[in-house]
Amino acid sequence: MKFHTRKWVKPEDLNPNGTLFGGRLLSWIDEEAALFTIIQLENTKVVTKRISQVDFKNSAREGDIIEIGIEAVKFGMASLTLACEVRNKMTQETILTISSIVMANLDDKGKPKAHGKTEMEYVTDRLKNK
Amino acid sequence: MKFHTRKWVKPEDLNPNGTLFGGRLLSWIDEEAALFTIIQLENTKVVTKRISQVDFKNSAREGDIIEIGIEAVKFGMASLTLACEVRNKMTQETILTISSIVMANLDDKGKPKAHGKTEMEYVTDRLKNK
Amino acid sequence: MKFHTRKWVKPEDLNPNGTLFGGRLLSWIDEEAALFTIIQLENTKVVTKRISQVDFKNSAREGDIIEIGIEAVKFGMASLTLACEVRNKMTQETILTISSIVMANLDDKGKPKAHGKTEMEYVTDRLKNK
Amino acid sequence: MKFHTRKWVKPEDLNPNGTLFGGRLLSWIDEEAALFTIIQLENTKVVTKRISQVDFKNSAREGDIIEIGIEAVKFGMASLTLACEVRNKMTQETILTISSIVMANLDDKGKPKAHGKTEMEYVTDRLKNK
Amino acid sequence: MKFHTRKWVKPEDLNPNGTLFGGRLLSWIDEEAALFTIIQLENTKVVTKRISQVDFKNSAREGDIIEIGIEAVKFGMASLTLACEVRNKMTQETILTISSIVMANLDDKGKPKAHGKTEMEYVTDRLKNK
Amino acid sequence: MKFHTRKWVKPEDLNPNGTLFGGRLLSWIDEEAALFTIIQLENTKVVTKRISQVDFKNSAREGDIIEIGIEAVKFGMASLTLACEVRNKMTQETILTISSIVMANLDDKGKPKAHGKTEMEYVTDRLKNK
Repeated sequence: MKFHTRKWVKPEDLNPNGTLFGGRLLSWIDEEAALFTIIQLENTKVVTKRISQVDFKNSAREGDIIEIGIEAVKFGMASLTLACEVRNKMTQETILTISSIVMANLDDKGKPKAHGKTEMEYVTDRLKNK
Repeated sequence: MKFHTRKWVKPEDLNPNGTLFGGRLLSWIDEEAALFTIIQLENTKVVTKRISQVDFKNSAREGDIIEIGIEAVKFGMASLTLACEVRNKMTQETILTISSIVMANLDDKGKPKAHGKTEMEYVTDRLKNK
Repeated sequence: MKFHTRKWVKPEDLNPNGTLFGGRLLSWIDEEAALFTIIQLENTKVVTKRISQVDFKNSAREGDIIEIGIEAVKFGMASLTLACEVRNKMTQETILTISSIVMANLDDKGKPKAHGKTEMEYVTDRLKNK
Repeated sequence: MKFHTRKWVKPEDLNPNGTLFGGRLLSWIDEEAALFTIIQLENTKVVTKRISQVDFKNSAREGDIIEIGIEAVKFGMASLTLACEVRNKMTQETILTISSIVMANLDDKGKPKAHGKTEMEYVTDRLKNK
Repeated sequence: MKFHTRKWVKPEDLNPNGTLFGGRLLSWIDEEAALFTIIQLENTKVVTKRISQVDFKNSAREGDIIEIGIEAVKFGMASLTLACEVRNKMTQETILTISSIVMANLDDKGKPKAHGKTEMEYVTDRLKNK
Repeated sequence: MKFHTRKWVKPEDLNPNGTLFGGRLLSWIDEEAALFTIIQLENTKVVTKRISQVDFKNSAREGDIIEIGIEAVKFGMASLTLACEVRNKMTQETILTISSIVMANLDDKGKPKAHGKTEMEYVTDRLKNK
């Protein structure tokens, strides 16, 4: 799993108990899943379809640096299934895992559309081959 | 299921495709689940432990009014399991369902703590009985 | 008065004195007044026209759960007048009251438009009668 | 009336009808009233006590520059009453007026405290006289 | 240099060390530079082109009131160069200085456009002369 | 230069001209610079001291995915100097460059403190060597 995006846990991200608000974390993950999918499917019309099983393993605290890892689990016809792990950058302790995030690939009318992708691609390779 | 909290979908809540950003919706739900649990367990130290299965049924658009429904599914020893449905207030169309949100009841040190609750309670009843 | 929307007071909602920032609370109320009006008048083009008298009775603190109550006070020709009370969900202590929020019903050009409504309606009844 | 703080109306500030969200505007004003009061009373423990009559005269649109004017109307024993006008910076058109914002001066325990001020003061004068 | 916009440093503006988050401050300044330029050049299509040298002199803390000063340094053909100082309103201590912010004046297609301005103007004068 | 953090440009990130608000971008970069420094210096008390020269090369639009690259330019006694490039993830077009961001390493009293670091380190290596 590759970990790209990092966040610095600031006061605006906390719940009233002084730990990272779970809803904020889910919001960060959903954005990361969406942009990962857009990069892979080369289509900006993608939506989150199903998320299962979100496990909150450890909490994060003010000032912690976390990183979000996403990997492709399965390339469907008109979908892409991802897995996610969020961990503490300094200690590598796992904060959250998600076993399955199903992203749907849509056409302009919002209907499922085949994407023709079957494996991970890298933007740098694509640009070289143009 | 009781639907309490309502949201008006504003430009700040949209993804770049012009529909309600899924991460924003998850953030709203996590807050609602937390406060529902605090009300039931009469303890402010609660955290989201596990979420399964989140189904995005229909999208919401700018200007839509949505309402968030939560119900208690199971009172555990030191946990409370919830179900959630989000729907469009005007059309009653379902936007999202979550079959299980497990909330943990913690003591001051962040360890699981028995809460002694076995069924739904209402704040008004509690205040009357004081 | 019916209380629907609930908020969990988080660090991002506080003023530098550690209590709920009044501006945040007013912002929440204005959204609730707008969506209440949209539901009643079945028109999405509504705007806040006049607010009088806002009384801050008690402050709210980090971690408090508050609920926002709105009721219809008067159905005008092209307006709807509301009253508002915000209270602490757990203690039922009043946090704020507003005696009058006048919402205007507009047409597509932003001009006042008669709405033809004279009393509270419920969405479920409307859907049944279709 | 002096107009200090200016805001550029951005997409995040809009309601779903594409005009400045009233709640956002009220939030900006409440902050301005608080800091104006802190400057005058030389006390950071101030809270909004009562607001009356808020009149929304004209709407603002995306890209508009607005400016917020505050003036002291009455110096009470433990309070300061303000008036407010918000206008469009480029056209000087009035967007909103508030006839009375009563700010309370508090001691460390949150009780009303006499502030001893009877007229407007300027920070530069205070610093010169030190 | 004229100081207009004021901010009250709230919990949502802090970094995890409890001082004003530098990124938030830069965001406030960029907005102020943009609206200052729009007012001067009477054109809403302006963008930040280059910023140099940003010096963070002193930190600001929760509850501090800061004010943002901007002045025009040079009127170019299709640009306007600004200087900026941010200071603590109560103590007048300098928080940040920027020696040069180059704003570009654009036409509808996003290309540089001559603005014909050579000196500071005031909105009130413009309106009188209409 | 390594590019880690990615952002999906959403409506809340736009200026009124429909492109990425420069202030938002600066805010994202300042956070990335801070967390990069914390990782390298193994100290959470770091602050931005000086930024020079920020060049806005190309604008980003709604829906664009951008990535933020940071590299260490110079390890000072009590500081770390960084360079930054932000680019469009899909096209690799440069959006912004910063030639120098000086971060200061502080002790608990906020005074400069020698950090003893002279070159880039990786968290995984540190954890292995424990």
